[in-house]
Amino acid sequence: MRQTEPAAQAGPVEGHRVTTGKEVRVGIIGYGTVGRATAEILTHNAEEIRSRTGGIALRVTRLCRKTGGGVESGPSGIAIESDWKKIVEAGDVDIVVEAIGGTDTAYDVVRASLENNKAVVTANKALIARHGDQLFALANERKLPIGIEATVGGGIPIVRAISDALSADRIQAVYGIINGTCNFILTKMEGEGLEFGEALAQAQAAGYAEADPSLDIDGLDARDKISILARLAFHGAVLPEQIPAMGIRQVAATDFHYAGRLGSTIRLVASAERAANGINISVRPWLVRRDSMLAKVDGPNNAIFLAGERAGTQMFYGQGAGGGATGTAVLSDVVQIARHLGQNRRSPNAHLGFQHSGPLPLCESSRPVSWYLRLTVRDRPGILAHAAQAIAQQGISIDSVIQEPHMPKEKLSFVITLEPVRESVVQKAVAAINQLEFMIEPVLLLPMVSAAG
Amino acid sequence: MRQTEPAAQAGPVEGHRVTTGKEVRVGIIGYGTVGRATAEILTHNAEEIRSRTGGIALRVTRLCRKTGGGVESGPSGIAIESDWKKIVEAGDVDIVVEAIGGTDTAYDVVRASLENNKAVVTANKALIARHGDQLFALANERKLPIGIEATVGGGIPIVRAISDALSADRIQAVYGIINGTCNFILTKMEGEGLEFGEALAQAQAAGYAEADPSLDIDGLDARDKISILARLAFHGAVLPEQIPAMGIRQVAATDFHYAGRLGSTIRLVASAERAANGINISVRPWLVRRDSMLAKVDGPNNAIFLAGERAGTQMFYGQGAGGGATGTAVLSDVVQIARHLGQNRRSPNAHLGFQHSGPLPLCESSRPVSWYLRLTVRDRPGILAHAAQAIAQQGISIDSVIQEPHMPKEKLSFVITLEPVRESVVQKAVAAINQLEFMIEPVLLLPMVSAAG
Repeated sequence: MRQTEPAAQAGPVEGHRVTTGKEVRVGIIGYGTVGRATAEILTHNAEEIRSRTGGIALRVTRLCRKTGGGVESGPSGIAIESDWKKIVEAGDVDIVVEAIGGTDTAYDVVRASLENNKAVVTANKALIARHGDQLFALANERKLPIGIEATVGGGIPIVRAISDALSADRIQAVYGIINGTCNFILTKMEGEGLEFGEALAQAQAAGYAEADPSLDIDGLDARDKISILARLAFHGAVLPEQIPAMGIRQVAATDFHYAGRLGSTIRLVASAERAANGINISVRPWLVRRDSMLAKVDGPNNAIFLAGERAGTQMFYGQGAGGGATGTAVLSDVVQIARHLGQNRRSPNAHLGFQHSGPLPLCESSRPVSWYLRLTVRDRPGILAHAAQAIAQQGISIDSVIQEPHMPKEKLSFVITLEPVRESVVQKAVAAINQLEFMIEPVLLLPMVSAAG
Repeated sequence: MRQTEPAAQAGPVEGHRVTTGKEVRVGIIGYGTVGRATAEILTHNAEEIRSRTGGIALRVTRLCRKTGGGVESGPSGIAIESDWKKIVEAGDVDIVVEAIGGTDTAYDVVRASLENNKAVVTANKALIARHGDQLFALANERKLPIGIEATVGGGIPIVRAISDALSADRIQAVYGIINGTCNFILTKMEGEGLEFGEALAQAQAAGYAEADPSLDIDGLDARDKISILARLAFHGAVLPEQIPAMGIRQVAATDFHYAGRLGSTIRLVASAERAANGINISVRPWLVRRDSMLAKVDGPNNAIFLAGERAGTQMFYGQGAGGGATGTAVLSDVVQIARHLGQNRRSPNAHLGFQHSGPLPLCESSRPVSWYLRLTVRDRPGILAHAAQAIAQQGISIDSVIQEPHMPKEKLSFVITLEPVRESVVQKAVAAINQLEFMIEPVLLLPMVSAAG
């Protein structure tokens, strides 16, 4: 980053304890929850940060919000600008923090920042999941770093864990709970016996779900995140659209009853794992043992498991969203870039693996798992016989059949659990069951993962 | 590291896919579990590693074991030398991995490596806990990196989490289970109802405990580790000897019965947290809720909690020891150093905070907690009255009294739990109780920490 060698300061900055006289200047574009928290933490923890950088001071010099106007709430009192182009072209900005969200303007912001020889830090998962390849190609060409720690898992340092901590290991799988909204809703349903709609309303009231919650509850946010994690772990490209995603709309209060009888609960899990012929990636609800670590993750928290061939399985747990956690993650990248600013780094993003542009080969999981099937039917004699026959035709063994008492005959649900079998096989049985005339709605099919977490 | 600019290679290394033609050479001193695993992983995962370094190849060029003789088991077939001085002075070594253990020769090895302008990576907690200040002072003077990720928590990237991920946050506390041997023993006692001695024998048989297990079971290993974590988190020096450490010898099978009746279990926890007048640090067994994350950590695993002012509380879980996990951590530092080798890094260790040489002010915890007191007595009338009086005299309220049925009168134990109070106050009551003539052994005093994990 010779091009943006920060201006050496002759004297002390902010009046105290600057020893090396260096300063790195940060421009923040987007001044919502994340942008605001980033500015606030940077100012509030200036001393802590300086002690981590070997004496380099960080300072917010520019702020931008679409609507413009007003000044920063902290002691700096910087005017908030409305034109992001001024920030990416500013002579007094070394690092641009992109905190707009979305993929249109945000793409232009990151691109223009790099073209103006500025390092970039972003919390924008949708942008990196879709356009990471192009943006990292440009950044690598210009030897400029892009920091993406905040794109997944809020304050949980999962990007570092994959790219730095396991840099010498062969990663087998990365999976976990990476959407706090869904986890809040599922733990509400579990704890209070609520139906999905009631729990969603509570999540909206608590500020954990948007007015249009579909990005979260249909698994699309988790899909963006797992595409980034898979990219980092397995060094190949996978677009979100390629990843099968099932959200939590279909999960009902009755599923928690059945799960409870199976010693389990339900969590939305995003997963990417090595399989025989490539990588298996999915976002879907899992039935997990009540005594597992995954089941312990409640409310809006995240937990990410990382299985290395040599390091074994690690778990990282914490707040997956919110200004404090996400701002801390943004700043962890800002600090790391600041440490290296002014050095001619050969390939500042090599550890992230975006330079490997081939697509990841996607395939079915090689691991047979047990399955939970909830059937919702109009009751009449012979239902179980028909369903069992569809299952037997695929050579699958039934492990148990459970039915709650006192259910209305016009809409009755029961659960069949199956012994371990591959998904492609169980899906054939499910397709056959869905054709049966007594079915009111499609089978809810959940993997039962006992070993994980 | 201009001084040790690695030799540029004209052609491919090991015959394939080297694009930048750079190679970084590693000398490993100490060829036991960790040294051997490090060499093996480095060779086995050469391709993965190269993809993380932007094309720099890592190669083991020297191996040293006190006894010398033989060759490396992998494909390199390097001769194993006996004189470590040859490795630290070798022209074909850029990074020295110190994997001897102990603090005498290891200190000389690290010092001599730095004096010969070589970067160092070590897994040696005892060395860094005691001599980190001197070694980092020398390293900083010479602008050479020392990697210490493997000193705490095996493969868990807790050093990075504190120093990189939370570099912009103010850390409030770091605590957790960081001795796998004790955790193995405690979970054996919990799960199988064993007495301490029986569980220790099983740990020794399983290879989790040494013939002389005192470093582990008396909390001394955990004390070394928490002194390093406190140093990283709070940027001040604390020697292991300054930290009060209680091991698990006093914990008996009966304590797990009582803990169970309190919905809890027992874990050895090392903790460092901000308090009103400094930092409170300790190693001791805690009574933890059965449904807590700490209670879920079983066998030889580790779990470390990190509470940041803005990032909230995170937990990191994984294998705390073993060649695979520790070797991966060693290599994560080797890879990170290799990425920067040949660059004139201003202060390569600034993030670790060893440049702040002032001592940490140690003090009592500001947080009142509940307490578990197990009294072992010769039974006679009036015992509870005397104990209760000693407690009342300190103004402490008793929460419950529990006694298992059918105990021998000549050695009977019962438990008193107390409402939240500071340790200095409860210690006065314990001192008074220990003076009572019916006491057979000193009170076992454990904090009951409900909020944590």
